[in-house]
Amino acid sequence: MAVTVVGSVALDNVETPFKKMNNILGGSASFFSLSSSFLTDVKIIGVIGDDFNQTYLDIFKDKSIDITGLKTEKGTTFHWEGRYGYDLSDPETLETDLGVFSSFKPVVPHSFKNDTLFLANIDPDIQFDVLSQMNSPKLIALDTMNFWIERKREKLIKVIEKSDIFIINESEARLLTGESSIFLAAKAIHNFGAKILILKRGAYGATMFLDDHFFIVPAYPLEDIKDPTGAGDSFAGGFLGYIDNTGDMSFENFKKALVFGNIMASFAVEDFSVDRLLAIKMDEIKDRFKKFRDMTYFGELSL
Amino acid sequence: MAVTVVGSVALDNVETPFKKMNNILGGSASFFSLSSSFLTDVKIIGVIGDDFNQTYLDIFKDKSIDITGLKTEKGTTFHWEGRYGYDLSDPETLETDLGVFSSFKPVVPHSFKNDTLFLANIDPDIQFDVLSQMNSPKLIALDTMNFWIERKREKLIKVIEKSDIFIINESEARLLTGESSIFLAAKAIHNFGAKILILKRGAYGATMFLDDHFFIVPAYPLEDIKDPTGAGDSFAGGFLGYIDNTGDMSFENFKKALVFGNIMASFAVEDFSVDRLLAIKMDEIKDRFKKFRDMTYFGELSL
Repeated sequence: MAVTVVGSVALDNVETPFKKMNNILGGSASFFSLSSSFLTDVKIIGVIGDDFNQTYLDIFKDKSIDITGLKTEKGTTFHWEGRYGYDLSDPETLETDLGVFSSFKPVVPHSFKNDTLFLANIDPDIQFDVLSQMNSPKLIALDTMNFWIERKREKLIKVIEKSDIFIINESEARLLTGESSIFLAAKAIHNFGAKILILKRGAYGATMFLDDHFFIVPAYPLEDIKDPTGAGDSFAGGFLGYIDNTGDMSFENFKKALVFGNIMASFAVEDFSVDRLLAIKMDEIKDRFKKFRDMTYFGELSL
Repeated sequence: MAVTVVGSVALDNVETPFKKMNNILGGSASFFSLSSSFLTDVKIIGVIGDDFNQTYLDIFKDKSIDITGLKTEKGTTFHWEGRYGYDLSDPETLETDLGVFSSFKPVVPHSFKNDTLFLANIDPDIQFDVLSQMNSPKLIALDTMNFWIERKREKLIKVIEKSDIFIINESEARLLTGESSIFLAAKAIHNFGAKILILKRGAYGATMFLDDHFFIVPAYPLEDIKDPTGAGDSFAGGFLGYIDNTGDMSFENFKKALVFGNIMASFAVEDFSVDRLLAIKMDEIKDRFKKFRDMTYFGELSL
């Protein structure tokens, strides 16, 4: 029972209308692994520069996250700088410096080759290379973004073909398939080969498709969002962590996993960087899950 | 057991990227009454011009909707012309001609004065005047729009003070209260006096607030939307119709009523004007409600 994530570990500058934070821990693998670590063993495959902060490595170690696959190379760590407006939705990217990530060639350790695998949003060529190194992973989940859809569509489709679960934004699914209806977009993606499709809708939740099964869920409503960075990866970490922990591959269990991911994302955005993920306790997560169930549940018609 | 609606009965021109329809039956009272008529007796208070089409009056009569309060005056019927873009969300208003509606002075018949009352989106001065004519209505629900919030805020707040249920768009609640958090906006509106607040989120569903109770629900996902006009009033009609039919004022029943309204709105947008509302059968409504329950239901944590 373990999940391996291949993705970025980064140093971010994040600005909102209310605060600016520099060189804080970011990157898809960071959010994913810390979120997932509440429910299962997690291993990171990635690369950092020799400028990386030892304190940040200790964060992973404290949560028993396996970082033997996180290599340190000469050079600078992946750096992203972004600014959010008052609506705290899509940020403006002010700077992206790949640093040592530009020559990232992941090597999958033998003991990782049968894990559940999460391919975070990176170059589809690298995603494909990782897949070819795996033995028989229990489950393969995949994220991407418009940048790769526009530049490496063919290779991306080959990665989708080999994946079980494809997690993307609703707008990206439309871009990828050319379909405006989410049902037609889902059909097209099923035809590419992914059995399960999860469409993220930002502050409005997510939808999930598996054959004729369909699930729709709003986002957990929050009074105060501090920094939306990492919401999607925290979601994916909670989702795959839940499936890996329970080992139940039914659609009913996938629904609970999706809501669990939803809840993890709702915590992640309540503070900058991974700070809120580090502070929460399992009881708080369970409590929020229960509250969410109450606020979305309705009974049968009384007519 | 009856619901009275005070609002517009209109002749609309509606254009989408796919079709244009002229002089079709529109107006808040039309959508509301036809939606509500599935579950309770409905009475319309409004005004039409002498250009109005007899066929449209027969539509109301066929559904046993009481139009004794719908007066015919010399002049033209309220006319709205709007155009939707490809996203089929907020339309561009090309023309609004109030016609006989500009001198609308509603008179509430005696037999209407204890009904459940829906004050559709009209001038708060008229809404206030209607309220002062009522005796002891079972329930008072209220809609409005940014136009009135900007121009007649003080009078609108006096109407909210006398209402039980306030139904508006999420963005309008922010405009009215100056609060960006929906929870703070809800608190402010509770302080104005409305016990129950329903915030509509367009294609993303709705939220409902009552004291410490909170309910959130996505919209019913549709493969093909033809014309979004009237979605909000069809929603309100289904919601109040359900409450009036069941007579159950518990929050649990209000949740079902909200979902019932959601389902009625999902039908309304599947064709132009009120055409889909006229074609559906009660079994289809119940079936869609059940489907929606399946696609949003999830179980307890298995951890």
